[in-house]
This record gives sequence, C-alpha cells and structure tokens, in this order.
Amino acid sequence: MRTLITLFTDFGTADGYVAEMKGVLYELAPNADVVDLSHEVPPQAVDHARLAVARYWRRFPEGTVHIVVVDPGVGTERAALAVASAGRWLVGPDNGVLSPALLASDAQVVRLTVPANASPTFHGRDVFAPAAAALANGTDIDSLGNRFASPIVRRTPVPVRSEDGSVLGEVIAIDRFGNIVTNLVTTGDHVIEFARKRLQLRHTYADVAPGTLVATVGSSGLVEIALRDGDAAKALGAEIGAPVRLYPI
Amino acid sequence: MRTLITLFTDFGTADGYVAEMKGVLYELAPNADVVDLSHEVPPQAVDHARLAVARYWRRFPEGTVHIVVVDPGVGTERAALAVASAGRWLVGPDNGVLSPALLASDAQVVRLTVPANASPTFHGRDVFAPAAAALANGTDIDSLGNRFASPIVRRTPVPVRSEDGSVLGEVIAIDRFGNIVTNLVTTGDHVIEFARKRLQLRHTYADVAPGTLVATVGSSGLVEIALRDGDAAKALGAEIGAPVRLYPI
Amino acid sequence: MRTLITLFTDFGTADGYVAEMKGVLYELAPNADVVDLSHEVPPQAVDHARLAVARYWRRFPEGTVHIVVVDPGVGTERAALAVASAGRWLVGPDNGVLSPALLASDAQVVRLTVPANASPTFHGRDVFAPAAAALANGTDIDSLGNRFASPIVRRTPVPVRSEDGSVLGEVIAIDRFGNIVTNLVTTGDHVIEFARKRLQLRHTYADVAPGTLVATVGSSGLVEIALRDGDAAKALGAEIGAPVRLYPI
Repeated sequence: MRTLITLFTDFGTADGYVAEMKGVLYELAPNADVVDLSHEVPPQAVDHARLAVARYWRRFPEGTVHIVVVDPGVGTERAALAVASAGRWLVGPDNGVLSPALLASDAQVVRLTVPANASPTFHGRDVFAPAAAALANGTDIDSLGNRFASPIVRRTPVPVRSEDGSVLGEVIAIDRFGNIVTNLVTTGDHVIEFARKRLQLRHTYADVAPGTLVATVGSSGLVEIALRDGDAAKALGAEIGAPVRLYPI
Repeated sequence: MRTLITLFTDFGTADGYVAEMKGVLYELAPNADVVDLSHEVPPQAVDHARLAVARYWRRFPEGTVHIVVVDPGVGTERAALAVASAGRWLVGPDNGVLSPALLASDAQVVRLTVPANASPTFHGRDVFAPAAAALANGTDIDSLGNRFASPIVRRTPVPVRSEDGSVLGEVIAIDRFGNIVTNLVTTGDHVIEFARKRLQLRHTYADVAPGTLVATVGSSGLVEIALRDGDAAKALGAEIGAPVRLYPI
Repeated sequence: MRTLITLFTDFGTADGYVAEMKGVLYELAPNADVVDLSHEVPPQAVDHARLAVARYWRRFPEGTVHIVVVDPGVGTERAALAVASAGRWLVGPDNGVLSPALLASDAQVVRLTVPANASPTFHGRDVFAPAAAALANGTDIDSLGNRFASPIVRRTPVPVRSEDGSVLGEVIAIDRFGNIVTNLVTTGDHVIEFARKRLQLRHTYADVAPGTLVATVGSSGLVEIALRDGDAAKALGAEIGAPVRLYPI
C-alpha cells in the first residue's frame, strides 16, 4: 500500500523551490508517491488556499499526507504544524490555512520542532517536507514536536439573516472561469441579489441563454453566480468580500 | 503492471478543482498512477486542446486512460463520453476534443451515465474521474453507459489546392514560443507565403541567421513559421485562421 | 527500487509538448516514475534554469535521471548531452544549463547520438526523453554516444573584493516573491548596499518591521534582499546584473 504526499503551495515552479522540496521528499520517503495539487496559489493568499484545502483534503484516501505551504509568516515566530485529522495528516504553517482539518472533532495538533540548521525562510524544504516524509514513513506525530493547544483557525464568514427574511452573505472566492463563489447555502427557491442584479436560483447554466447571468448551487454546495459562456466576475466587477443577498421568493 | 491516468484540463490548479479530481482518482483507483499533462489550456479552448490531444494520445502505452476536460458545455445537455480507441481509453465531453481518438477505425464510444447526485457544473470530479478510475480498474466500458453513435467530431481544416498549383492553408495554432503552426503538409521544395512574406522551406532554424523568419516542417509534421531566437507570432501579428499559402518552386 | 526521471523545461504544458515527452518516457521506461519539476521556466532563460538546477539536482536520490530542456539552440548544431555526476544522470542541451553537474569532479559527459528521424526542433521528445529512458533502464551512458571533452560551462559571476575591504557582487536572480538573490556569500556582520539603500545583514525577515527592506542569507546560502510582506524587486526596480555591495561593519 503506497502513501501519498500531496503538495499545495504558492511557490510557482520556475525558481526551483518546489524541485528542492521534492528532492527532500523522495530522498527521505522513498516509498511514497508525491502528488502535485498546485503551486500556482496567488502569492501569500492564505484564505484562497484554505478554501481549496476545504475542497480536497478529505477526498484523498486515509493515510494521505497533505503539505500546504502558503506562508507569509515564514521567517517569523509563527508555529509550524502537523495535524492528524480524519485519518489524514497535514503539515503547514500556523496561519489558518489548515483550518478545514483543524475543525474536525478528532484533530490532533503538534508544533513541529524546527531543526537548528533549517533556513529561516524556507520551511517548505527544511521543516514541512521532512515532517511529511516522516509521517509517510509511519513516524508517530508526537515524535515530531509538542502538542499545540491553540492553532489559528480561520473561518468562512457566516451569512446574517435580516428581519425582512433575506440573508446577507458575501463573495468568498472567484475562480479561474470568473465564477463568483459566495458563502450562501440554500436548497430552495430563492432570488440572489448581487451588484444590483436580481437572479433567480437555477439548477444549472443551461437554464439560461448564453451570455446571461445565472445563480446556481456550485460544486462545493455554495451559491455561485456565473455568466453562461462568459466571465461573471469581470462582467460585474466582483471582488472578495462584496455583499450578496438571498431573498425568499 | 501499473495503469496510467492522464489529466489534461483548462482548470488551472489554484482553485482546488484539480485537487478534488485527483482525490477521487486516488480513492477509486488505488493502483493507478495519475499523470498531469496540463491544466493550463486556455479556458474553454476546445480546438487548442484537440490539437494537443492529437499530439499525445497514442504516445502513451496501451491501457492508458486519458481524461480531457475542456468543457464549455458543462451544465448543459451535452453528452459525457468514454472512448476505447487503439488500445487506450479516453473520457471527456462530447464537443470534439476527443476527435483524434474518435477518428481511429476501431473507436468505440459510450455515453456515460451521469449519477443523479453529480454536480451539474463539475463533471470532471463527478463523472469523468469516476469513469476513468473504473476503466483503470478494468471495468468494461459498456457498463459505464450506452453506445453512442454520433459523437461530435472536429477536424483540422483541409488546405485547398488552387488552379495555379499553390495550396491555401491557414494558421491552426500558435505555441508558447510564438511558432506559427499551419495545416500545410509538404516534403518537397516549396515557398511559404504568410503576411506578405515569402519564405523558402528550410530543414531547421539553423538554416537562417538569428533574427530571421524561417519556415520548416515542425515536430508534428506540419509546416511552421518561426523567428530564429524570437517570437514569430508577435512579429507577424499572427492569428488562428489567418491564411498561409504554399507555392511549388 | 524505482527510478525517478525529473522534468525541468520552459515548454509550458498547454501545447502538448510535455505530454508527448511523457508519453515517450512512460512507453520506453515502464518502471520509472516521472516527476515534474517545472515547465514554467521563462522561455529560453538558460541562466535562470542553471541556478534552479544547482538548487535541486543533488537533493534527489542517487540513480535519479534529470531532464533539463531550456534550449534556445535547438535546431542548430549544438550538442545534446548526457552527464553522469555524483551518482545522478542529467540530459539536456550543451548550453551551460547542466553546469552544476558538469563542475563535479567525477562528471562524465557524452554527446548523444541524434537519431536520423529526430525532429530537428523537438529534441525533448526525440533525443532527451529516449536517452533519459535508456539511462533509467540501466543502459550504459557510453552506449548513448561518444565522450565529449568540452561542454559549455556557465558560472555564476564571482564577487570582486575592493581595496576598501568591500565586496562588489550583483543580482543573479529574482524569485516569484520579489526576493532579490545576489552572488554574495557571508556569515558575519555586514552591511549590504543596493539601489542606494544600506541594509544591515539580519538573520530573518522577523528582525525588521513589516514593510521594511531586509538583507538576509537566503535558503541557498547567498545574500538576498527582501521586503517583509512585500515585493523587494518591484519596490527597488531590481534587475539581473545590477550591482550589490557588501561592507564589513
């Protein structure tokens, strides 16, 4: 049975940093398979990464080790973490990027011991990759450092119900295709208001004509606003945090 | 003997969609190896993807499963396909992107049964990845859906011979280096005319001086126009579909 | 024991060239594992690639085969090389990109025999991938071509000591985060001068306030200039080759 080690970073690949990390992983965990998830996270975009981690971390088989390095605090005293949660392991900085796993009820968190010779600015290579390799090799998480009681947890903002029965949410992500992802959850008939447009919630893009805006429940279960055959975010000037309102019909 | 599952998409990697697909693949096909080919296809560029598929699909070993998701029609009634062709399998949308494999004489095509709980806007995760995993696990293609008689086939335009003996073709692709790929095929001595420039067909870039335009037979067997040590497409303002003419000498 | 074949190119992935190379590798070396390091090197940036190769080539296990294709001279008479060095193999063009391995004392260099039917403009697919597969399969390097006595070696410029005790170096790289990498090496207390700013050498970013410039010894052992929580290269208009001076305190 092979063990997977996944990589999700904002390093890009051209500079050789990811290559160095992979060299360390293959050297230290010769039986593991290293799986690229992304190196194209916008630099230091912690919340962007957190939302992606929420999408993927539990879809991998139990035993998988997820490395997540989006780490604007590297070179400071921020803790380096290893987490055991729902049968998977995760390693990454203590800045909230691992929150989806930290919120699981069985999560165990260790503050990784930083080797004395680690580069203070490249924990991906010198702290997170060796820790992930150790976990993939079956090392007990508690041998990697001390239990850590208060990791930083970041949460997606919770929508607010108004007296008129509407619910005020916000834009939490914009994807590559220009789809606008909100924090609103619904299963019923609703109208979505964004940027002075009112859109009835539809099942899928095909329910509107090409070139038309459409609100649907997206693949992560959240309300999204799309432009059929176009880029909704550009068309509407959407930005993270902009208000979106859901009205009952 | 391992089975390869390749991935070719326009998803980018930062949003976590590719990561979700990989989680599904590794969960459902624990003995397969997942191979990234690209996630950087220009969004919804079906013909661009089709030409790349033509380059690579038969170079992989028999038994390989190719996932190709460039899918502007997701969320509509377009069919989701699995294809058996020349000993390989392919899964992807019915929009012509799989044409290179569909044109092989032994191609068998199945319309994938879409699970009731599939997200209507993320067939990559909920339809194509599970189908690819099933094929990698040895599942019979006919158990994945019904035979499909009329998949969409897109073809590279065929050049037209003129009365004067010249052949009129067009630009079909522009690569990362600015090389202009045409639909012209030749093995003889010819002159290529593009953007009011006339270029004698050469064997390779070194047959002209640096900074000079050159026409050669490229690595896919088609006539290409390059600028030695430069970007021909930018220098000539080339666009897909622009006319290119080949003259006998 | 598996063999790793790594890939480091400037091809991008969208055009299908990398996919073709992988097809060749998996077809010819069915027991090897192919590992992407990067396909996003700036086009034809040989020195950029050379510096990345220096970072990673020895971090991988012995027996690894590294393919490096950043090759502005493809289509000319430049040699195609295979190198055995420090227990690893490397294949790539003779333009200095393999210099870090060529400089090792035990390096052996072979000029690869180019097959008659190789595309003159795609040695990645037709020369380097088959050679790498052969090496991964255990083929003797000397069966791939003749020994080659004088490969091109490119070196990072050496800083120059001035009469006043200062050392004049230069910018050799700018990474994705805007960190400015120099060719200066130091372990002591020093002041770094760049773009009319004088910065005391610090241990890490956290030694200065957010928004402040800082000079540190980076993860490759070279002096770097960073902007805490910002992009130093943009802030200072840094360019490759710009002078940087180190003063003793």
